Formats: sequence, C-alpha cells, structure tokens
Amino acid sequence: VIPDDPDALLEAARGGSRGALARALTLIESGGEPQRALARSAYAAPAPYALGVTGPPGAGKSTLTDRVVAALLDGIAERVAVLCVDPSSPFTGGAILGDRIRMQDHATDPRVYIRSMATRGHLGGLALAVPDAVRVLGALGWGWVIVETVGVGQLEVDVAATADTTVVVTNPGWGDSTQAAKAGLLEVADVFVINKADRDGVAETRRDLEQMLDLSAPGAWRAPVVATVATTGEGVDGLLGAILDHRDHLRATPSAQRGLERARAELERALGATLRSRVAGLDGGAAYDEQVAALAEGRTDPYRAAEALLGPA
Amino acid sequence: VIPDDPDALLEAARGGSRGALARALTLIESGGEPQRALARSAYAAPAPYALGVTGPPGAGKSTLTDRVVAALLDGIAERVAVLCVDPSSPFTGGAILGDRIRMQDHATDPRVYIRSMATRGHLGGLALAVPDAVRVLGALGWGWVIVETVGVGQLEVDVAATADTTVVVTNPGWGDSTQAAKAGLLEVADVFVINKADRDGVAETRRDLEQMLDLSAPGAWRAPVVATVATTGEGVDGLLGAILDHRDHLRATPSAQRGLERARAELERALGATLRSRVAGLDGGAAYDEQVAALAEGRTDPYRAAEALLGPA
Repeated sequence: VIPDDPDALLEAARGGSRGALARALTLIESGGEPQRALARSAYAAPAPYALGVTGPPGAGKSTLTDRVVAALLDGIAERVAVLCVDPSSPFTGGAILGDRIRMQDHATDPRVYIRSMATRGHLGGLALAVPDAVRVLGALGWGWVIVETVGVGQLEVDVAATADTTVVVTNPGWGDSTQAAKAGLLEVADVFVINKADRDGVAETRRDLEQMLDLSAPGAWRAPVVATVATTGEGVDGLLGAILDHRDHLRATPSAQRGLERARAELERALGATLRSRVAGLDGGAAYDEQVAALAEGRTDPYRAAEALLGPA
Repeated sequence: VIPDDPDALLEAARGGSRGALARALTLIESGGEPQRALARSAYAAPAPYALGVTGPPGAGKSTLTDRVVAALLDGIAERVAVLCVDPSSPFTGGAILGDRIRMQDHATDPRVYIRSMATRGHLGGLALAVPDAVRVLGALGWGWVIVETVGVGQLEVDVAATADTTVVVTNPGWGDSTQAAKAGLLEVADVFVINKADRDGVAETRRDLEQMLDLSAPGAWRAPVVATVATTGEGVDGLLGAILDHRDHLRATPSAQRGLERARAELERALGATLRSRVAGLDGGAAYDEQVAALAEGRTDPYRAAEALLGPA
C-alpha cells in the first residue's frame, strides 16, 4: 500500500519503494496542496546535482544521456535519475516512445530511475514541476538528476537551463542554422557537444561554435566544445570530464549573485504554484459560476470578473 | 506621436495608424496594468471571427494561410489580420523568417495586417496574450483574424484551439504518424486539410483521417477533409467553403454550453494575467528581497516564502 501523506510517502520512497517514488512525482506534477507539502519537505534536504541536456530533435540526446548515465555510475555517482521533460506535443509522440525504448538498457538497474514528466493541459505546469521533482529526487538520495528535454521549444530550453550544468547537443552541420537559433542555445550552454561526430563537418561546426563563443559576453566560464559519437561511446569520457570541470568551477567560485538569482527563480515558481492553487480553489464556487455566467451573457469582461473574484490587490 | 493611454491608442489605431496598432499589440504581449486596461476596452466590442491554423512543421501552413487571406478578401472579408504565434524557439528561428518572407505578397496591402507574437521568457504569456490580441484586432475593425501557429508543441495547439474554427493542416503520408500525434490534433480540428495533395498518398491519408473521425465521439459537427495544393491554389476554394460551412454551423446552433466554456476559459486567462501582474508588483519590494535573501541562505523554502508574501489564502 502506497501512503498518501507526503511525509509517509517520502519515507516509503526512501525505503526503496519505486511505487512510492512514482506517486510522489505524480503529486508534484499534479499541483495543489499535496504538491506544495511534498515540495516543502524536499527543500529541507540538500539539492542533487542537476544536469540539463537539451538540443534540437534528432541530435541524439537520449542515446547520449544513456552513455552519460553509464559513465556517471562508473565511479562518480551511486545513483542517477533521469527526468525526460515531455510537453506532450501531439507531433513528437513517436520520438518519445523511441527514446524510452532506447533507455531500456538501464530499465532494470536499481541505481537508475527514469521518468517522463508531462503536465498536458496544465499551462506552465512543467516549468513549475521539474525543479520541484529534481529536489524530491535529491531528498530521496538521488545525488545526480539529469533533466533531458524532448521537445523543441523555449520552454524546454528554459527547463534545461535551471540545471547546475547545461549540456547543449548539436550535430555536424549546425553552422547552417540561423543566428537566432544559435544565440538561444548559446545563452544556456555550459558545455557544447557535437554529437554524431563520425559525420562530415565536425571541424566547421567546432569553428563556428568557437567563433560564437568568442563574440559572446566574456564570463568566468567558457563552454568547452566536445565531439562525441553516442552510438559507439566515443568522446563520452571527454564529455563527462567537461561536465565535472564545470561542477568544479561552480564549487570553486561560490557566487552570492548566482545564489540570489536561483532563490529568485525558486520564489517566482513557488508564487506561481501557490497562486495557481488559489485560483483552482475558486473554481466551482458560487461566485466563480456567477462570474462565468455574467461573462457568457456579456454583462462583464474577463478582467473585471477576475478582479471581482480576487478582491482588491 | 503614438499615445500611451490605452483609449487614445485604440482611437489612433482605429484612425488607421499602423504604429498605434503595433504598439497596442506590444502592450498586450507585455502584460501588466496597461495590458489589462487595453484588453478591457477591447472586450467591450464584438469579437472578430477567429480562424486557427495549426499542424506539424513543414506542412505548408504559411503558404496556405496566404491563400486563405486572398480568398477571404475576395468577397468575404474587408480586412484580414494574421497573428503568427511564435514561441521563440531557438530551433525554429529559420522557419519563422522563411514564413515571413513568403507572406510579403500581402505586406503592402492595407486590407491585411500580419504580426508575429512572441513573449520570450514570459511563461504562459503567449497563451494569455493571443486571445486578447484577437479581441483588440476585433475592436479595431478587423473582422477576421487568423491565428497561425509556427511552433510544434501542445501550447501552440491549445492557442489555435481557442479560435472559432480550427484548421489542422496535414500532408499525404500523415497516416504514418503515431496514434498519439493524431489524437491530439483530432481533438481540436474543425476542418482537416491534406496539403501538398499533388504528392502520392492522398487517398490513404484521407481514408485514415475518415476512420479516425468514425471512431471519435460523434458530435453535431464532423470535420470535413479537404485536399489542397497551397503552392498552386488548388483546392483553396473548397477549404474556404468548409471554413464558412463551419461558421454557419456555429451560427445556426447557438450553444449555451459553448458560451459557458468560452467564458470559463476567458476568466481563467484573466485570473492568470491578474495574478501574474500582482506577483510582478511584489518583485523589487523590500519584503520580496528579504524572502529572496532568506531563501538563498537556506532559512526558508520557496513555498513558505511565497505564503509569507501572499498572505493567508
């Protein structure tokens, strides 16, 4: 029997129950009061190391993630969790199933936990839920959590960017992409990967990336560019080295600024979740139904109705 | 000089100022108090007819939209506005530029207004802004507004689905897509288009779509399946006929249920926008900064900090 109480649920998950772990993450996805109670417990524990993996569809993110999981388990991490962020796009359903099948190498390994996260029809829900899910996994002893994005939009890039280290996966020939496309990924990349590096064009793509990095605002960390062939494992050691270098860099340069930025982002997410929950609490009440009826009959406008329900600011 | 006051801005836009129109839509995108004031004025006017156009990348949505604009201007509509919903994906930047170049046929036509909408970094912002932008265009005398989605995610499908009539654009061979992909689009389609119908596989794709429609919940309206070749204009008359048939169907069957559903969706969006604005109002205040500092120092958790700022529910 899987308990419903957040603390009992975390306790059962700590005891090794995969069912309790799955239930806990479902609660995080679903929002509302149980989500907040669970998240609050989770935030009392230290955060895990979060690794974001993003990049265009077909770049080989899933196979590469698979390799990184194996490399981490080889002496770096005792356990690794993978959250596959899946915005339930009706257009990418096939790719997601394909990804999950590829990940079955690890499906029976007790040191690995793989989970798709989706909150279909729940606007902005994924961006709220993923960071909390990372903290829940951390509180349950998963020291490394990989957030792999399946989708292709800004939302997915933003989610990956909440990680400690963000890996952007590209392929040879990426130099042909538009400047806008490259700039968006440049912002979030701590490590660049040129995957499928057994194809032509690696040198050109590397030169292109390095030129972009030359032109971008200089900071304390310059994203290294690593070439890999995920299907054979070639270059994965180099990628792991780059990830650990970035982790060491973060540790060696504790930054009050970075801590405040992270706190600000966490607070904004929690404000959003709390307000969302309060709005959901209004739904179904008599006052809510009355405003909906007034709106349907043209007796008010949506913003006046919202003010009427929320009261003065 | 473009006025800042919402009413003066709408007045200037009504007078034909494209600069005022652009400023008004920028205000809608940016959120906050000016957005709400402008939206409230717009909701006092009748809604325009909103036509959603969605479908996978490369299906030919933009070329088809171009043809539909021309067909509407040929006796149906005096003016047509096109909102291109662009979630600023770093991966689709190229396609967006390409779309805009193709639309230049209409760029100098005073009866046509084309605008990309993007609210990068503003989570959920697009889904809030697009319906309000449609109403602003309606209040300014644009009787038809086409909402064309550029992206590929659930968000874009949801946005298209807020339209009166939603056209889902597919291509021959779509039968090979996963069931999940097809089900997502089936939900929102009022009209199906098989574009690029000069290619092989039209009959199979049509059969596949009709079978899906046979299996779906029977309703008062069954989405017709129309074949087009947007590049030559073939079949566009049939598409326009299907769109007008659906509009006539909606007019002939006024539904209290549909009106309440629409009002509920509008109210939820307005609640979201109002709460977002109140949260933004907190940002930068002393209490907010204090909670951010406490969070950065581990003295609180994000949810406790949010409750402290928002006060009791």
